[in-house]
Amino acid sequence: MKNRFYLCSLVILLAQAGVAQDQWIQYVNPLIGTRKMGHTFPGATVPFGAVQLSPDTDTLPYDVNGTYNAGVYKYCAGYQYDDPTIVGFSHTHFSGTGHSDLGDFLIMPTTGALQLNPGTAADPGSGYRSRFRHATETAEPNYYKVRLDDNNILAELTTTTRVGVHRYTFPQSDDAHIILDLMHGIYNYADKNVWTFVRVENDTLITGFKQTNGWARTRTVYFAMVFSRPFRSYGFTNFKNYPYKGFYKRFDQTKNFPEMAGEQIRAHFDFKTNAGEQIGIRFALSPVSTGNALENLLAETSGQDFEMIRKKGQDQWNKELGRIRIEAQDRESLVNFYTALYHAFLSPTVYMDGNGEYKGLDQNVHKASGFTNYTTFSLWDTYRALHPLFSLVQPRRNSDMIRSMLAHQQQSVHKMLPVWSHYANENWCMSGYHSVPVIADAIVKGLTGFDANQALDACIQTANVGYYDGLEAYLQKGYVPDDVRPNSVSTTMEYAFDDWSLAQAAKKLGRMDVYETFMKRSQNWKNVFDASIGYMRPRLSDGTFRKAFDLLSTHGQGFIEGNAWNFSLFVPQDPEGMIRAMGGEKRFVSHLDSLFTMHLPDLFFEETEDITRDGIIGNYVHGNEPSHHVAYLYNFTGQPWKTQERVRMILKKQYQPAVDGLGGNDDCGQMSAWYIFSTLGFYPFAPGSEDYQLGSPAIKKAVLTLENGKTFTIDVKNQGARNVYVSKVLLNGQPVNKRTLKHSDILKGGIIQFIMAARPAK
Amino acid sequence: MKNRFYLCSLVILLAQAGVAQDQWIQYVNPLIGTRKMGHTFPGATVPFGAVQLSPDTDTLPYDVNGTYNAGVYKYCAGYQYDDPTIVGFSHTHFSGTGHSDLGDFLIMPTTGALQLNPGTAADPGSGYRSRFRHATETAEPNYYKVRLDDNNILAELTTTTRVGVHRYTFPQSDDAHIILDLMHGIYNYADKNVWTFVRVENDTLITGFKQTNGWARTRTVYFAMVFSRPFRSYGFTNFKNYPYKGFYKRFDQTKNFPEMAGEQIRAHFDFKTNAGEQIGIRFALSPVSTGNALENLLAETSGQDFEMIRKKGQDQWNKELGRIRIEAQDRESLVNFYTALYHAFLSPTVYMDGNGEYKGLDQNVHKASGFTNYTTFSLWDTYRALHPLFSLVQPRRNSDMIRSMLAHQQQSVHKMLPVWSHYANENWCMSGYHSVPVIADAIVKGLTGFDANQALDACIQTANVGYYDGLEAYLQKGYVPDDVRPNSVSTTMEYAFDDWSLAQAAKKLGRMDVYETFMKRSQNWKNVFDASIGYMRPRLSDGTFRKAFDLLSTHGQGFIEGNAWNFSLFVPQDPEGMIRAMGGEKRFVSHLDSLFTMHLPDLFFEETEDITRDGIIGNYVHGNEPSHHVAYLYNFTGQPWKTQERVRMILKKQYQPAVDGLGGNDDCGQMSAWYIFSTLGFYPFAPGSEDYQLGSPAIKKAVLTLENGKTFTIDVKNQGARNVYVSKVLLNGQPVNKRTLKHSDILKGGIIQFIMAARPAK
Repeated sequence: MKNRFYLCSLVILLAQAGVAQDQWIQYVNPLIGTRKMGHTFPGATVPFGAVQLSPDTDTLPYDVNGTYNAGVYKYCAGYQYDDPTIVGFSHTHFSGTGHSDLGDFLIMPTTGALQLNPGTAADPGSGYRSRFRHATETAEPNYYKVRLDDNNILAELTTTTRVGVHRYTFPQSDDAHIILDLMHGIYNYADKNVWTFVRVENDTLITGFKQTNGWARTRTVYFAMVFSRPFRSYGFTNFKNYPYKGFYKRFDQTKNFPEMAGEQIRAHFDFKTNAGEQIGIRFALSPVSTGNALENLLAETSGQDFEMIRKKGQDQWNKELGRIRIEAQDRESLVNFYTALYHAFLSPTVYMDGNGEYKGLDQNVHKASGFTNYTTFSLWDTYRALHPLFSLVQPRRNSDMIRSMLAHQQQSVHKMLPVWSHYANENWCMSGYHSVPVIADAIVKGLTGFDANQALDACIQTANVGYYDGLEAYLQKGYVPDDVRPNSVSTTMEYAFDDWSLAQAAKKLGRMDVYETFMKRSQNWKNVFDASIGYMRPRLSDGTFRKAFDLLSTHGQGFIEGNAWNFSLFVPQDPEGMIRAMGGEKRFVSHLDSLFTMHLPDLFFEETEDITRDGIIGNYVHGNEPSHHVAYLYNFTGQPWKTQERVRMILKKQYQPAVDGLGGNDDCGQMSAWYIFSTLGFYPFAPGSEDYQLGSPAIKKAVLTLENGKTFTIDVKNQGARNVYVSKVLLNGQPVNKRTLKHSDILKGGIIQFIMAARPAK
Repeated sequence: MKNRFYLCSLVILLAQAGVAQDQWIQYVNPLIGTRKMGHTFPGATVPFGAVQLSPDTDTLPYDVNGTYNAGVYKYCAGYQYDDPTIVGFSHTHFSGTGHSDLGDFLIMPTTGALQLNPGTAADPGSGYRSRFRHATETAEPNYYKVRLDDNNILAELTTTTRVGVHRYTFPQSDDAHIILDLMHGIYNYADKNVWTFVRVENDTLITGFKQTNGWARTRTVYFAMVFSRPFRSYGFTNFKNYPYKGFYKRFDQTKNFPEMAGEQIRAHFDFKTNAGEQIGIRFALSPVSTGNALENLLAETSGQDFEMIRKKGQDQWNKELGRIRIEAQDRESLVNFYTALYHAFLSPTVYMDGNGEYKGLDQNVHKASGFTNYTTFSLWDTYRALHPLFSLVQPRRNSDMIRSMLAHQQQSVHKMLPVWSHYANENWCMSGYHSVPVIADAIVKGLTGFDANQALDACIQTANVGYYDGLEAYLQKGYVPDDVRPNSVSTTMEYAFDDWSLAQAAKKLGRMDVYETFMKRSQNWKNVFDASIGYMRPRLSDGTFRKAFDLLSTHGQGFIEGNAWNFSLFVPQDPEGMIRAMGGEKRFVSHLDSLFTMHLPDLFFEETEDITRDGIIGNYVHGNEPSHHVAYLYNFTGQPWKTQERVRMILKKQYQPAVDGLGGNDDCGQMSAWYIFSTLGFYPFAPGSEDYQLGSPAIKKAVLTLENGKTFTIDVKNQGARNVYVSKVLLNGQPVNKRTLKHSDILKGGIIQFIMAARPAK
């Protein structure tokens, strides 16, 4: 029996009683995924907002004694549900990542003797952090509330795109403080902080910036912070001792001195409060300057109180979530679906000031002309289903994301499209060049708003940077040799898929020379296939396959986030060829069946990253992305009903309306996007193709409002927990095959009907 | 007999034979002041240029073993004449400062096995530095040449305002290198480097920036560097080991990887050279961005070769130096004069890109609208004579400097005018608020081009920032108590003088309430005068004078860079009042006479900073600025001929056409400005007044070309080494008093004639 956190019954009853239409946010629970490996954050943000204002319960890889904390991995989003204390509220968070960064500008309200150290969770009194209870916690889209028990302060958070809005209700205190911790950060390795600079412009306005060397190597975030009322006094401590102090030593900089700078700074602002008195903070970010941050602050919040800002952001959420309106059997399904859609619409995030300025990879200021610039591209994950989801229900935004990726490519000294990029940096995480399938998918699906030929050129250029991750060897030999790079097999397979998607875009644009070249490259998966064992296998420079090889291990076997069992199936560009190579349909189906049912030794779960034990079904690892297309592979055999069966099983097992409801990292929405597509009954099996593979829809009805003004309805007859098999599919009343659906057919508007049954239609 | 470096006789002979008119640069020797305490640099720069490209012979306060090098002080300009080696050529240098910073972006050409450590002067082979000999060295305005003996490379340097231009002539080598050392810097305390970021854009273009925490606390300089030919390979080493390396670890970043970042970086670019082959570098700076740096590079050097750039800069120098055309008795006087004028025209330096953008104190980018933005304001020094010199012969530039100071004030979080500022920073060095007399002097002298009332308001605001250096106590008690701040007496006296100058500007603008307030404040010098001993003396908060007090010591006695003997005379705003307070004229003259003639214990010279023993005449310290008006004080007694006598003696003793020819730090041109004025026969005794005090001109003739189109001629009859006394003064043919000259009379154009004599006209 799992210890899960279900929404309270009262809310469920209210929901069943019926609420205002289009109030989709009622179904969103931002706490889902905050326990274990989901790595989601519970705080406030607007769709794709630049600010994610959220509580951090811990972040430090080194504790206060300097000891390395191996548990840092779990703090990718700053919050873990089981933690007893909150350190404070910081303004930037990734949703669902494995590696991490951010956590900028932590704010914490306190009363009593000033403490400028966060202290430890084991001894909250040792610092400014506070205990809290989930009973006092509320998390909604763009609203978060919690009581900080140690100081009896009610904390409430909301946001606009670029502004975090705080409201703290204090008890009576002669000694109330707002702490601004500039040392705080997520994945806060020693020396991560490079520099901070703060100005107390007057008794309500603070400006400054912080520069870090973390996952992003050279990253600067600027801010402007406005208090709702003047502070009485302020000060800061620099926790680093410099050999040279300069002539600032003539001042007592620790007290009411308006200029602070250094590597390790914590500041405080002091108040006297009456019981129930509220202190508000508006905290705006900018990638460019404190001047822009202040402009953002004024433009987005002037004349609006906390409730207006909260409502405006929640209205934005209702509008975005309403792009897919579903009817489901129960509230749990609605919560799962709209929370998934919420998580899918968190990132990529806006990375641009109101005036269009942003920082480029050259660290210079650029102006986005005619598009919104985005950052946080977790492309190894998101090319699979998240960007295809955007191509479907957010095509304008996806085009802007592609324009952002093209700007990245132009500003990159490598002239490469993003691999994993955030905040004007390439962090080089993961493998492949998966900007290519994102762009190819958009070209093939006819998205406009970017220059398709320029985009294709950027793809070609990216796919030919020899010094990138074994690419030179791949171009020469047709595979990445295992003695050249680790993860040589998965990298080869990913390149081959990306090359295929590039070819598809080239074909669409009539550039047949490019098509031919890259179609040839797309066959390179065959070069790492060892026919003697029927699996992909590491291959050496001399052409021989590596002898020492473990089919089950996920470490050191030439694959990233997967083993040979799973990753050998990653040929979405040529499933038929793969099935042939693997010995034909019968043997292949047997492989797939075994994958889902086999028992694995415990070690497997211990060494596999990014997932909970719940994220594994047999040897099928849903918590990691390389398997996301696998359940749909049965569609390419004579047994498509097994796709329908597996998909429903995965939906049920891997997604729960609970704090530990996600079987692995949400990975910037990719896990959620899989849920959304699969729940709707189709999946973008091979981005770069306009074909979706049909599975088994898990709702009763869904209406997609498309940006071309059309609607597309998914209507499911005989829906039920046991009726997981599709017996018939009608498109606009006409029977069609039960395996695929074309993107262009959706764009025309209309209705697809699934007739469900309790038995497979063999 | 002093061991001085005189210009070689051949050059003197050539000069005597006559050269092309207006070739004033022939008289400039940038090596003057490079031995001992002059702290000048010998390298290439244009007038007020943003780039000072000059050899550094050493800079490190810590040697390679981490041991503190107390001798760092002498490397304020990066170069000491007696050093045997050159580390390389860096792009930014102060001229004549005491404290220091800069030394950005060191370039060094080498051959043979790559060395990325500078090595030591004692063992040049231990690193990339090279031995050199002065016999191979040439220093001219905007041109520097030296042979690097260890590698047999000829180095030549020239500049434009924002671009350093290098030309290196190599021997045949298969292993030639250009090193770009981003760790190098002047006053390079541990942790001074905050971050560096470099991109190899292609095989000839490098861009990047460097951020430091030095005298300027938060300072970033951007660059773009272009080679005249492609390098064959390149690489870099990061000398700091980071606990977290991120996913860059997938690359071998040390070889041909185009993106470098970190705290301690040295890069190299590799070539194969033929004998006599030249490699050129154009290295542009920007305060704003690498994009702007590249724009500056193209705008200032496109289509021009090394010789054209050199000539253009030298033409600029001839034009600027030609604002004062003198005739002198000998070449030495010409060399002294034009080298002084050269040093006076080095700073403040342009701090603005070609497109008008610059970084402000808020670290945001601003655009200078209608003016050139300057930085490097050594105001405690330069308000005395350098800015008055600009008011006279560079009024447009001085107005732009004032506009730069006003921009600083608006961008300052303290809303203060600069104290000592450079590169978008206030470094708080020295005391007082001497922007005020610079502005007041310009207002009183009728300079236009800035808003005088806005400027006055900025002065008033600056003069009332309570937390600044004892100012709150000064406003309350009329003096800075010695128990509140060190240097309490000199600070009180400087505030009082600055207040007087502010009052003069207010009077000129008809703001009589301000005039009254500040005239009252200007009398505050009286509050630290101890009538019982006839000297200024530290006073405590309780109103009593400090008991322990040493009249001669320059340390811990309440004065900065001076003792009670010298600093008690610092009441330029009310010399008559001071003479009365000090016991009347007879006693006062006796004090002055003693000052110049008394013998002091050796300890005095040891503990007094910024000067050589040569910088002292008796107890008169010319090497420090607080005495700069002192020789002119006799003008306020019945014995003005003693002013004439002392001035000529100081000119002769303190300024020599030799590498150790300066008696103290040139202090951004203040020492030189004293020389220029005094040589011309008049001195701005009290900036904020339009009266100059007449001394004894040391030239035969001078013609000042004024910006209003007029010329003003100084004609000296009976000039001679012994004829130091002025027997008669005629202004436009009319006899006038022998003590003062009005700025407005100069502005009218005309001629002043001094009739000299060997005996004083008592």
